[in-house]
Amino acid sequence: MAFSLARLARQPALTPRALVGLARRSLQSEAAPALRPLSAGHLEHHLTDKPRALTPNKDLVFGHTFSDHMLQVEWTADAGWGNPRIQPYGKISLEPSAVVFHYAFECFEGMKAYKDAKGHARLFRPDLNMNRLLRSTGRVALPSFEKDQLLECIKELVRTEKRWIPSGKGYSLYIRPTVIGTQETLGVAPSNRALLFVICSPVGPYYRTGFNAISLNANAESVRAWPGGTGDFKIGSNYAPTVKIQLEAAKRGLQQNLWLFGKDHQITEVGTMNCFVLLKNEQGETELVTPELDGCILPGVTRDSILGLAREWNEFKVSERKITMGEVKRAAQDGRLIEMFGAGTACIVSPIKRIQYMGEDIMVPLDPSDPTCQAGPITRRLNDELLAIQYGEIEHPWSVVID
Amino acid sequence: MAFSLARLARQPALTPRALVGLARRSLQSEAAPALRPLSAGHLEHHLTDKPRALTPNKDLVFGHTFSDHMLQVEWTADAGWGNPRIQPYGKISLEPSAVVFHYAFECFEGMKAYKDAKGHARLFRPDLNMNRLLRSTGRVALPSFEKDQLLECIKELVRTEKRWIPSGKGYSLYIRPTVIGTQETLGVAPSNRALLFVICSPVGPYYRTGFNAISLNANAESVRAWPGGTGDFKIGSNYAPTVKIQLEAAKRGLQQNLWLFGKDHQITEVGTMNCFVLLKNEQGETELVTPELDGCILPGVTRDSILGLAREWNEFKVSERKITMGEVKRAAQDGRLIEMFGAGTACIVSPIKRIQYMGEDIMVPLDPSDPTCQAGPITRRLNDELLAIQYGEIEHPWSVVID
Repeated sequence: MAFSLARLARQPALTPRALVGLARRSLQSEAAPALRPLSAGHLEHHLTDKPRALTPNKDLVFGHTFSDHMLQVEWTADAGWGNPRIQPYGKISLEPSAVVFHYAFECFEGMKAYKDAKGHARLFRPDLNMNRLLRSTGRVALPSFEKDQLLECIKELVRTEKRWIPSGKGYSLYIRPTVIGTQETLGVAPSNRALLFVICSPVGPYYRTGFNAISLNANAESVRAWPGGTGDFKIGSNYAPTVKIQLEAAKRGLQQNLWLFGKDHQITEVGTMNCFVLLKNEQGETELVTPELDGCILPGVTRDSILGLAREWNEFKVSERKITMGEVKRAAQDGRLIEMFGAGTACIVSPIKRIQYMGEDIMVPLDPSDPTCQAGPITRRLNDELLAIQYGEIEHPWSVVID
Repeated sequence: MAFSLARLARQPALTPRALVGLARRSLQSEAAPALRPLSAGHLEHHLTDKPRALTPNKDLVFGHTFSDHMLQVEWTADAGWGNPRIQPYGKISLEPSAVVFHYAFECFEGMKAYKDAKGHARLFRPDLNMNRLLRSTGRVALPSFEKDQLLECIKELVRTEKRWIPSGKGYSLYIRPTVIGTQETLGVAPSNRALLFVICSPVGPYYRTGFNAISLNANAESVRAWPGGTGDFKIGSNYAPTVKIQLEAAKRGLQQNLWLFGKDHQITEVGTMNCFVLLKNEQGETELVTPELDGCILPGVTRDSILGLAREWNEFKVSERKITMGEVKRAAQDGRLIEMFGAGTACIVSPIKRIQYMGEDIMVPLDPSDPTCQAGPITRRLNDELLAIQYGEIEHPWSVVID
């Protein structure tokens, strides 16, 4: 961005008029003072002298246990990035006026570290998470950073926390990079201070006892994202508003909300996952469909990986396109709906068995050959192949050995 | 809400399946255990022994100086509300996993305390702020609270901080009630812990040297709010995404973004304010128009008060209805556009002089009789009458003496 956000944010109290003045001056002279970049070369290690006991695999609950250390880097509009620090996991102290508490200056990523059969730690397509985090910080006026340098710091954090990566297929160390605005003011303006932190949580497989297909509430009243909005960014703003709607689905016995958009009830996302439909389309072709990235859809890493695998297989048509509830309903009525699933980092795939829509139940087939299995064959195969890549059983450039 | 959010949130780790189970049980037995209500009767005073020096009026910058004390109340899903505490203004310490940092579980209010000519402290329609905060907490799955009890606590906070209310017309103590979710987990589910806090910041008049009319960027590409979204709630999610768009307006020398909606470019809000247009309409009537509360518009206290005053005056038509850029542009071309302004707690009114729209400049008249004044006569009169009520110069039920 030619326009210096950092310079704008440096001014503590920006009235609209001051903002315009600064913006003008910034445009006139682009020789901004050099701000310190984020540099893995300056990473400091401040290790705990009280390492904690590991949680047994059987007791792991998603996002509840955290490892001994976290990565932390402070940014100021005057100086840029400070030294990254690997330091004991611990509290963050902020003034009650910190803008993160008021205006949702916050964005995050979700990624995982896996332990392979030889005991090496692996990441899965971490470059995509860094790219997306950088897009997200830009969207909520938080600072830019050096993607490759942050990734190096994260790798070092994972190496430091290697004993926290649980062993066993399906187990992993969930990694949560987060950036928050910490300026102590009530003005709605770019934050002149920020904190980037990364915490790690050992997690178990999403399905401990085989797949559990979910039922959805297809909801046309509540809308997750809108053209010209922020649905394609991983920012805090997109999440809290969804919880009430998820609860309303839960009240009706449905595990997730299926987010629709528009008068034609386009399918967008399911819960906090991307959505996939496998069907025989009206032209008689077998087609795997996921909504296109039109600005309302999160560009999921799992989404992209599923599209990549399915295209490599080259066994059926793979499409990123608009798909409506009407099309799904007609396919179900005609016996052309084959499988349907959500996709995300936490679960990889989440098979769908039923959609409640306009007072009707649309049933989605699972495995017709095995009534005990709650996932269709393609859903299962995508899951198994992605898992095999993530754990290094299949060598693939997506899986990055880091130690 | 018959459905017990508190009970749902009490469970630490809610998988979609567990959520449904809890929702079902909650619906079956509505005899929820009694959670402790928020009670002003339990208010504790823990006063500072280091009161700070007041900031001189001339040095006050919006939202930068804070008073000696804050109000703080903790909530847990198991126990309900703890004792409210007036305690020294100070940092909040949270685990890095606290949900407020990741998913924007946060909402707030903006209100002011005024010192009248007799030295009494006054609030302005504080019941409306309490009503709106309660709506906001419900929307982001944060706990319900007793509105009248919270207001009593806030009154007591203001009485405690009375020396921090600056004297002088236009000066006031800005009050910021905030509720954040503090559960320490990465699951996207109702927070089983929350913190309500209220901080106070002495502020000066928005216009120190007479009105400064602003120029707007009318923006049809970026959308602040949409049907089925959250534009009518005062939640953090609605703010961070607007800052980048405001910066883009600033880059073009325009102080605020005018948020449009729909193919017909309906006017919705301006910056973080409600928007008013005074025009001679196509039927030849003088009409004050503000967009109706259709779910995309914040129900502003100043908005409601301006509508109330103008209806009391009964001198022109007062409408809450859809108004498009096309209508405003035609009115300007025909010489029927009379005045236009933003309205909010910080500024009361913010006169508008120019709108950049589709590559054209639409000029809005200010005071035709006084070229040195940057506000139209009705804008000024509304501002002056509201100020007079707020400072008790005109006795009015909207202004509440609290000491």
